[in-house]
Amino acid sequence: MLAKVYVTLKNGLLDPQGKAVRHAAATIGCQGIEDVRQGKYFEIRLDPALDEAQARAQVEKFAQDLLANPVIENYRVEIVP
Amino acid sequence: MLAKVYVTLKNGLLDPQGKAVRHAAATIGCQGIEDVRQGKYFEIRLDPALDEAQARAQVEKFAQDLLANPVIENYRVEIVP
Repeated sequence: MLAKVYVTLKNGLLDPQGKAVRHAAATIGCQGIEDVRQGKYFEIRLDPALDEAQARAQVEKFAQDLLANPVIENYRVEIVP
Repeated sequence: MLAKVYVTLKNGLLDPQGKAVRHAAATIGCQGIEDVRQGKYFEIRLDPALDEAQARAQVEKFAQDLLANPVIENYRVEIVP
């Protein structure tokens, strides 16, 4: 079983990395890029003995406690059976 | 219009960040986490005047030239109309 976790900065927080990439886009001639926000993406391989509910519970805990900083970041968990 | 770009290390390449997070999972009592691979995730706001084909072309170029290092990374572009 596979889980995917997306971690993004909360809305309204400054994202200097995203801004830097957005400005670089103009210098290489990419048109129409108005805003970029950078986040993190995790692919997690899970023990196949877990059922979907157990897997989600473990990955939620993992994301909340380790992968994201809940003060400034949101996360989203996706379980791929 | 919104684009999402996922950048991941190619298979077979060592991912020390992912490995570190995977080992930390055990120390906080998360069960069943067998492997973690860390990547990058970008949310890109596009000029609404672009049509979907133009948007995809611009974002593909942007991802290929700036967001990913094609020697060691794969990327995937998703356009959300």
